[in-house]
Amino acid sequence: MKGLKVVVIGGGSSYTPEIVEGFIKRFKELPLKELYLVDIKEGEKKLNIVGALAKRMFEKAGLDTKVILTLNRREALKDANFVVTQFRVGGLEARAKDERFPLKYDVLGQETTGPGGMAKAFRTIPVILDICKDIKELCKDAWLINFTNPSGLVTEAVLKYTDIKCIGLCNVPIHMTMDVAKMLDIPYKDIFIEFVGLNHLVWGKKVWNKDINVTKEVIEKLQDGESLTMKNISDLKWDKDLLNGLNMIPCPYHRYYYMTDTMVKEEKEDANGKGTRAEQVKAIEKRLFDLYDCEELKEKPKELEKRGGAYYSDAAVSLISSIYNNKKEIHVVNTRNYGTIKGIPDDSVIETNCIVDSRGATPLNLKGELPTEILGLIQKVKSYEVLAAKAAVAGDKSKALMALVNHPLVPSVNIAKKLLEDLLTINKKYLPQFNEQ
Amino acid sequence: MKGLKVVVIGGGSSYTPEIVEGFIKRFKELPLKELYLVDIKEGEKKLNIVGALAKRMFEKAGLDTKVILTLNRREALKDANFVVTQFRVGGLEARAKDERFPLKYDVLGQETTGPGGMAKAFRTIPVILDICKDIKELCKDAWLINFTNPSGLVTEAVLKYTDIKCIGLCNVPIHMTMDVAKMLDIPYKDIFIEFVGLNHLVWGKKVWNKDINVTKEVIEKLQDGESLTMKNISDLKWDKDLLNGLNMIPCPYHRYYYMTDTMVKEEKEDANGKGTRAEQVKAIEKRLFDLYDCEELKEKPKELEKRGGAYYSDAAVSLISSIYNNKKEIHVVNTRNYGTIKGIPDDSVIETNCIVDSRGATPLNLKGELPTEILGLIQKVKSYEVLAAKAAVAGDKSKALMALVNHPLVPSVNIAKKLLEDLLTINKKYLPQFNEQ
Amino acid sequence: MKGLKVVVIGGGSSYTPEIVEGFIKRFKELPLKELYLVDIKEGEKKLNIVGALAKRMFEKAGLDTKVILTLNRREALKDANFVVTQFRVGGLEARAKDERFPLKYDVLGQETTGPGGMAKAFRTIPVILDICKDIKELCKDAWLINFTNPSGLVTEAVLKYTDIKCIGLCNVPIHMTMDVAKMLDIPYKDIFIEFVGLNHLVWGKKVWNKDINVTKEVIEKLQDGESLTMKNISDLKWDKDLLNGLNMIPCPYHRYYYMTDTMVKEEKEDANGKGTRAEQVKAIEKRLFDLYDCEELKEKPKELEKRGGAYYSDAAVSLISSIYNNKKEIHVVNTRNYGTIKGIPDDSVIETNCIVDSRGATPLNLKGELPTEILGLIQKVKSYEVLAAKAAVAGDKSKALMALVNHPLVPSVNIAKKLLEDLLTINKKYLPQFNEQ
Amino acid sequence: MKGLKVVVIGGGSSYTPEIVEGFIKRFKELPLKELYLVDIKEGEKKLNIVGALAKRMFEKAGLDTKVILTLNRREALKDANFVVTQFRVGGLEARAKDERFPLKYDVLGQETTGPGGMAKAFRTIPVILDICKDIKELCKDAWLINFTNPSGLVTEAVLKYTDIKCIGLCNVPIHMTMDVAKMLDIPYKDIFIEFVGLNHLVWGKKVWNKDINVTKEVIEKLQDGESLTMKNISDLKWDKDLLNGLNMIPCPYHRYYYMTDTMVKEEKEDANGKGTRAEQVKAIEKRLFDLYDCEELKEKPKELEKRGGAYYSDAAVSLISSIYNNKKEIHVVNTRNYGTIKGIPDDSVIETNCIVDSRGATPLNLKGELPTEILGLIQKVKSYEVLAAKAAVAGDKSKALMALVNHPLVPSVNIAKKLLEDLLTINKKYLPQFNEQ
Repeated sequence: MKGLKVVVIGGGSSYTPEIVEGFIKRFKELPLKELYLVDIKEGEKKLNIVGALAKRMFEKAGLDTKVILTLNRREALKDANFVVTQFRVGGLEARAKDERFPLKYDVLGQETTGPGGMAKAFRTIPVILDICKDIKELCKDAWLINFTNPSGLVTEAVLKYTDIKCIGLCNVPIHMTMDVAKMLDIPYKDIFIEFVGLNHLVWGKKVWNKDINVTKEVIEKLQDGESLTMKNISDLKWDKDLLNGLNMIPCPYHRYYYMTDTMVKEEKEDANGKGTRAEQVKAIEKRLFDLYDCEELKEKPKELEKRGGAYYSDAAVSLISSIYNNKKEIHVVNTRNYGTIKGIPDDSVIETNCIVDSRGATPLNLKGELPTEILGLIQKVKSYEVLAAKAAVAGDKSKALMALVNHPLVPSVNIAKKLLEDLLTINKKYLPQFNEQ
Repeated sequence: MKGLKVVVIGGGSSYTPEIVEGFIKRFKELPLKELYLVDIKEGEKKLNIVGALAKRMFEKAGLDTKVILTLNRREALKDANFVVTQFRVGGLEARAKDERFPLKYDVLGQETTGPGGMAKAFRTIPVILDICKDIKELCKDAWLINFTNPSGLVTEAVLKYTDIKCIGLCNVPIHMTMDVAKMLDIPYKDIFIEFVGLNHLVWGKKVWNKDINVTKEVIEKLQDGESLTMKNISDLKWDKDLLNGLNMIPCPYHRYYYMTDTMVKEEKEDANGKGTRAEQVKAIEKRLFDLYDCEELKEKPKELEKRGGAYYSDAAVSLISSIYNNKKEIHVVNTRNYGTIKGIPDDSVIETNCIVDSRGATPLNLKGELPTEILGLIQKVKSYEVLAAKAAVAGDKSKALMALVNHPLVPSVNIAKKLLEDLLTINKKYLPQFNEQ
Repeated sequence: MKGLKVVVIGGGSSYTPEIVEGFIKRFKELPLKELYLVDIKEGEKKLNIVGALAKRMFEKAGLDTKVILTLNRREALKDANFVVTQFRVGGLEARAKDERFPLKYDVLGQETTGPGGMAKAFRTIPVILDICKDIKELCKDAWLINFTNPSGLVTEAVLKYTDIKCIGLCNVPIHMTMDVAKMLDIPYKDIFIEFVGLNHLVWGKKVWNKDINVTKEVIEKLQDGESLTMKNISDLKWDKDLLNGLNMIPCPYHRYYYMTDTMVKEEKEDANGKGTRAEQVKAIEKRLFDLYDCEELKEKPKELEKRGGAYYSDAAVSLISSIYNNKKEIHVVNTRNYGTIKGIPDDSVIETNCIVDSRGATPLNLKGELPTEILGLIQKVKSYEVLAAKAAVAGDKSKALMALVNHPLVPSVNIAKKLLEDLLTINKKYLPQFNEQ
Repeated sequence: MKGLKVVVIGGGSSYTPEIVEGFIKRFKELPLKELYLVDIKEGEKKLNIVGALAKRMFEKAGLDTKVILTLNRREALKDANFVVTQFRVGGLEARAKDERFPLKYDVLGQETTGPGGMAKAFRTIPVILDICKDIKELCKDAWLINFTNPSGLVTEAVLKYTDIKCIGLCNVPIHMTMDVAKMLDIPYKDIFIEFVGLNHLVWGKKVWNKDINVTKEVIEKLQDGESLTMKNISDLKWDKDLLNGLNMIPCPYHRYYYMTDTMVKEEKEDANGKGTRAEQVKAIEKRLFDLYDCEELKEKPKELEKRGGAYYSDAAVSLISSIYNNKKEIHVVNTRNYGTIKGIPDDSVIETNCIVDSRGATPLNLKGELPTEILGLIQKVKSYEVLAAKAAVAGDKSKALMALVNHPLVPSVNIAKKLLEDLLTINKKYLPQFNEQ
C-alpha cells in the first residue's frame, strides 16, 4: 500500500474542518497520506479558504498529510481509497428555493423532506452517478461515503443503479444516541439504540442500557419536555399521547410528519420574516468563512457546531477507520435492506445498525418487524423514495409525479402537478436528465 | 335439510327489496324457506313497511317463502344458514354526524373513509361481535355475509377477533366491472378485472377481455372523460397523468385520496348548502318508504337504484348461491389475505377475486405484487385499519389515536386528537367499549 | 377465427386415441377443425397406424375434423392454437435403460423419479426448447400443453427458460380424485382435494365433501387397505402410522420416497424376471398397435386403459376447453408457484389447484403452508429439480452432479458420480447439450 | 454486583479443565467469584477428581475464585449469572448405544447426527427443560450457555418451549476458522467466514481475508488434500467436483451426508473392531481422569485436546465475556433465525455469525439466501429437527416417527419404525416423557 488517499468532493464546504479534525484525531489508526479537496469553479474561492485552513490544521498537528486543492475531479479520484461526497448542487441558493416553492401551496418546504428534498435529489443524482462512473474507471475498489442529502435517497440511487461500493451516512442517529446518553446520564458506550427506518425517518425502536431496556425512561424524559433535536429543526415538544402510542423514540425529522400543520406555519412565518433556514445559514456561512480565512486559525472553530453538522468527525472518520482497519464496529448507516426491516423492499436502502468492516456494512438482524403504528408511514415514504430515485435517474416525469403523489406531505394530485412544474422550472439548469428528453 | 333459512339483520333497511328481488330471481337454485328480517325497536316502523312489501313481492312471485319480521335477534338466528348484516348503528343521523365533524378541521367527512368511517366502525364493531357470539351459540355453521360499512374494516374485526365464517361484500367491484363492460361494449362475462386492494381502496390492476389485456383501453376511455363512479361519490374527472402513472383502474373512492382538496371543498359547500350525503339520503329514504308503504307496490321500485346500493341482488344473493350450491364461481369479496397481496399482513382482510364454494372464499393467486405506485398508500391505509379494528374491539383510545395519526387524510397529531375527542363525544352512547373503561 | 387447430407432438403415441376420443366427446364446445399428428421418422409406422384410427374415429362420430399426419413439425405448428407434447425421446428403449442403470447401485430405476427421471428430462428438454423456438416463430399465441414426463421438471424448464405460454399436465391428481370419490361413494363433483406439491410428489392436503372435511375418512380407508394407485406403480399398502403422521393423502409416487427399500427390491426382481415396467409396456404397446391397425376398429379400445394413461380425455381436452372457452374451471396443473406454496421459490413450477381460463392457469391461494411433516422432502426434491432443469438447459455437468447429490434417493456423492457417468454415456446420442461442450 | 457466579452443569466432565483454563486466562475481564461444578450422584467420583484439579488450577494462578462441588443443582443455580450445560445423560454408555443401534439397519450411528443424535436429544431435552424451570425460579436473568449435543436441536427446544435466555455453542465454526487461517497462513483475526446453516450442518458460505473473497483458494486447498476436520470425524478427503459444485466450505460433519456409504462402512468396521467412537473415548477418558487425579497436575493437560473438544476456552469463556462486558464481538452461535437465513422458519434455531453483547446474540444479516445446491438438504434436516424437538418435548411418538422419516439418512418408513422402537426401548429409563403416556 502506497499510503491512504481520501477525496472529498464538495471540499470547499464549511464542514471540511470537522472532517479534517476527525482525521487528525485518528491519525494513528488512519495514517492519511493525501487529502484531496475537490470543488467546482463556482466554489473555488471557498475551496481556497477552507483548504488553507485544512493545511494549517495538519501542520499544527505535526502531520505531513498532503492537502491538495483541485477543480479536477478525475485527477483527484485516480487511485483513491475513500471518496467522501458532501457537495451541494446549486449551493445554498438552490436550497433556499427548495424551502420556498412548496410553501406557495401550503406544503412543507424543507431541504431533505418533501418536494424540496426531491428537488435536491434530482439535482444531486445525475452528478453522483457521474462520480460513480469516474470511480469505476479510476479507483474501482474505493468506498464512496455519501453525506450529500437526502442521504438515503441518494444512496438508494447509487446502490440500485451503479455497482460502486457505497455507504450513506447521516449524523442524526449519532446525535440521538449522544442526547439519550446525556439525558439518562449513562456513558455513551453503554447505550445501544435499535434504529429502524429510513434516513431522516428513523425510529429508536428500543433503547438499551447494557441489558436493560430503558425505552420507557427516554419516552418519559421526552414527555417531560427534554429535547432530542438538531440545530436545523424547530424544537417543538412531542405530544405525550403520541409518544405513548408510538412506544419508540422518533427522530427530530418526524416532526415534519406528525406536526405538519405547525411546522408549515412556522416555516411560512420564517419565510416572511427572518428567512428560511438556508437564508439564515448563508449568514452563518459568511461568518464561518470570515473566521476560516484568518491565518491565525489553526483548528476547527467552535462556531461550526451551530451549523448543524456536529459529530461529523465521529460519524464519518470513524466509519472510514472501521472499514480501513476491518474493525467490525457498529455504526448506524444507510445500506441495502435485504430483509432486515420486514415490509421494505430487499433492494431498498434503509438506515439501521450495521457491523462495519473491510467488506462494508452488514446490518444486524434486530428482528425488524415494524409495529403497525409506524409501518404504514415508513412504507409510504419508501414508495416515494423508490419512485423519486427512478425518476431522478431516468428523468422520468411521470414517475416524478407518482413520487410526489405518494409523498405523505403532498395533499392531492392537483398540487403534486403544480409542485412538479415549479420544481422542474426552478431547477432547470441542474436537471439535464429531464431536459434532454 | 329442513329448508334454507336466511336472516337479514337491519332488515328494515330500504335496501331490503333488492335482496328480496335477488332471492326471487334465483329461487330455483336457492329454495328459500324462511327469510327473517330483524331490526331494533327504533326501526320497527320501517321494518313493518319494508317487511310487508317483501311479503307482497314473494306472494306476487308465487313463492311460499315465509317472511318473518322480528325484533328478537336470537330467536331469528336459531339454526340459520346465512346471516346477512346490513344494519346501521345510529341510523342516518349518526352518518350525518360522521360526515360533518371532520369538516371542522378541513378533514374529509365521509361515511366509510377517514374519521367518519372510523366512527362508523367503532359503532358497528361491538354490535357485530355480539351477533357473532349469538351465531356461535345458535347457528354455528352459518355464514355471515357482511355488508355493513366500512365493510373491509368490520370484516377484519370479525375474522381477527372471532372464529365465525364470514365474507365481506361490497358492490364497488361489480359496479366497476359492469361499467367497464359497458364502456368497452364487451359482454360482462368476457370481462375479467384483477382486483387488488382493500375495501373502498381497490384497484383494477389489469382488465382482460378474455385473453386480451385491455387495461390501456379502459384508461384511455377514462381519460376521455368516461365515468366509473357510484351514486354517492362526486364524479370528478380523473387526471390523465395520474391514470398514466398508475397504469391501473382506480375505484371511485380513490378520489378521496387523490383529489382530497377538491373533495373536501365540495363537501363543505354541500354541508353549507344542500346538506351532506346522509342528509340528502334522508329525503330519498323518506320517498322510498312512502313508495314501499303503498299496498299496490309488489316489486322493487326503480327509484331504489338512486340510493347507491345497486347490484345488491347480483352481489349478495349470487354469493349466497355460490356457497350454498358449491358453485366455485369467482366473486370479488373481502377475505383474509394470507399472502395473496404481498406487503399486507397475512391475517388482514383484503378485497380481491376469490373462488367461492361451500368452503367459503379462496383468493386467486393473481401474482399480487403491488406496483410501487400504489404500494405505500394501501399499506398506510391498512396500518390505519389494523389499528382501528384493534381500537374498536378493545376500546383502546391510544390505538384509536394511532389509527387516526396513520390515516393519510389526517394531517397531524394535533388534529387527530381533536377529531378523536369529537368522535368519542358525539358517539358516546354507541361506544360502550370506550365508556366502560 | 378460421377454426381451431391443435397439434399433437408425439402423435404416433399409443395414447392418441384417448385424446381423439376427448375431442369427439366435446366437439360442441371445442369445434376442432384440424388435428395435426406430428412424429419423427422413426415413429412413422406407428403414426400411420394410429393416425388412420383417429381418422376412422372422427368419421364414425360424423365430424369433419381433418386429421393430418406429418413428420414436418414446423409446417404443423404454423398458426396452431394448441400444441400438445406427448413425445418420448428415445422411445421405450431409452425408458427401459432409465429403469435399469440406477439399479446397479441399488438406486431406484424409474421413468420420472430419481436418476432415470433426470435422464428422461435431459433427453426431453433440448427438444422441447426447440419446439418452443418454433412456437415463438410460427404460432406465438398458442398454448403449449405438456404431458411429456417428468412433466413438472419439463414445464419448469419451459417456464423458466422460454416465454411460451405453457401448462404442465399429469393424470395423477384426477386419478386420485376419482379414486377418492369412488372410495367414499360421493359424486365426483362434490369432492374437492387441496393439492399441494410437485408433479409426482403431490399431496392431497385436505379432502372436502362440499363443506365437510373428510380427510380423516380417506386416511382410514387407506389404512384399511383401500388403494389409490396407478397402473404403473406397485400397489404397496401404506403404513398406518405414516398416514396418521402425515395427516394427508400421499400420491402413488410417494411410495418411491417412503418405501424406497421395498420398491428397489421389487424393481430388481422385475428386472431379473418379467422385465422392467418399460419392457412390460412394450408388449402391451405391441398388442395395442395390432388392435389399432385393424380397419374395423373405430373407437378407443378398452385395452388402452391398462397402459397407465387413463383419464387423458378428461384431463387434457377439458383443460383445452377451459382455456378456449374462458371457462374458469378448476384444474390441477403444473404452473409457476409465485408464493402459492410457501417455502418453494416463486419462479418454480408446482402442481396445485388452478382456475383455468383464456389467460391460462391461476393458482388458488389455499393457504399453502406446508406442514413440517412434508416440507423438507418437497424442498429437497425442488432443489433437485431446479438444478436438474438448469443442468439440462445449459448442459452443465457440475449442476447435474449437484442435482443428483440433492436427490433424496441418491445416497452419496460417490454414487451420484457413477450414476451421472452412466447416464451421460448411455444417453449420449440424445444429449447434444452435454456433448457440444 | 456481588461478584460473578457461574454454574457448570455436568461439571464432572473431562472438558472442565478447558473451561477453567479459559476463566483463568480472562480473569481480568471476567472476575469470576464462584464456580459451581454440578453433577449427579453417578458422576460424583469424576466430579471430585476434576473439581480438585480445578481448585489447584485457580490456586496456581493465584486467584481466589471459589470452586464449589455439589450434587444439589438448585442450590447451585441460586442467583447464578451464567449457567453452562455440558452434561451427558446416560454417559458414554448411552452414547455407545446411540452409535451402535442404527448400524443394524445400515444406518449411520453417530452421537449428534441421525437416529443416534435424536436419541441423545430425547434423553437431554427433558433434563434441560427441568433446568430451565429451575433457572426461571432461582436466577431468572441468568444466561444459559448450552454445549450439550446435539447443541442446535437442544437449543431449539429451549428457545421454543421456554423463555430462558439461551445461546447454543459448538466448537466447529471456531475450528474451521482456525484451520482456514492456518491453511492460508493469514492471521486469525483477518479471516471472516460467513457461516450459514444448522449446528453440525454449517457451511462456510464465503471466506474473507479482510475485504478479499478467498473462498476459491480454500476450496483449492481442500481439493489438494488439505484437511478441515475434527478429532472425532474420519478425515475422508472431499470430492473435487463436489467442492466445485458447492462453491462453499462444508463442515466436517457434512461427510455424514455426502459420503454416507463410506462413513457407514467405516463405522461398521470400527464397531466390529476397535470399537465405536464412544468406546474409544472411554479409554481416553480413563487416561484423562488418571492424569487429573494426580496432585501434581495444576493445569490443563495437553492430552485433553485429543478428546475432540478443543478451543472450548476461546469459544465458551470468550462468549461469556462478550455478554458480561457488553463487548459486541462477533461469535458464531446457535440462536433464533428470524429471517436471517431465508427458507428456514423464523422461530427455528440456526448457526450463524452474531454480535454478542449484554442483550445476547444478534445475527448479522449476511444476505442469507441459500444457494439451491444446499437449500434442500438444510431444509430437510431442519424439518427433522423441528419434528424431533416437538417429539422430545411432548413425548409424541408419531412426531418422532415423522422426524426420522424426514431425516435424510433414514431410507424408509419401515426402517424408521424399527429404529424408533429400538431407540425407545434402549433408552427407556431416560425417556420419562414417552413412558408416562
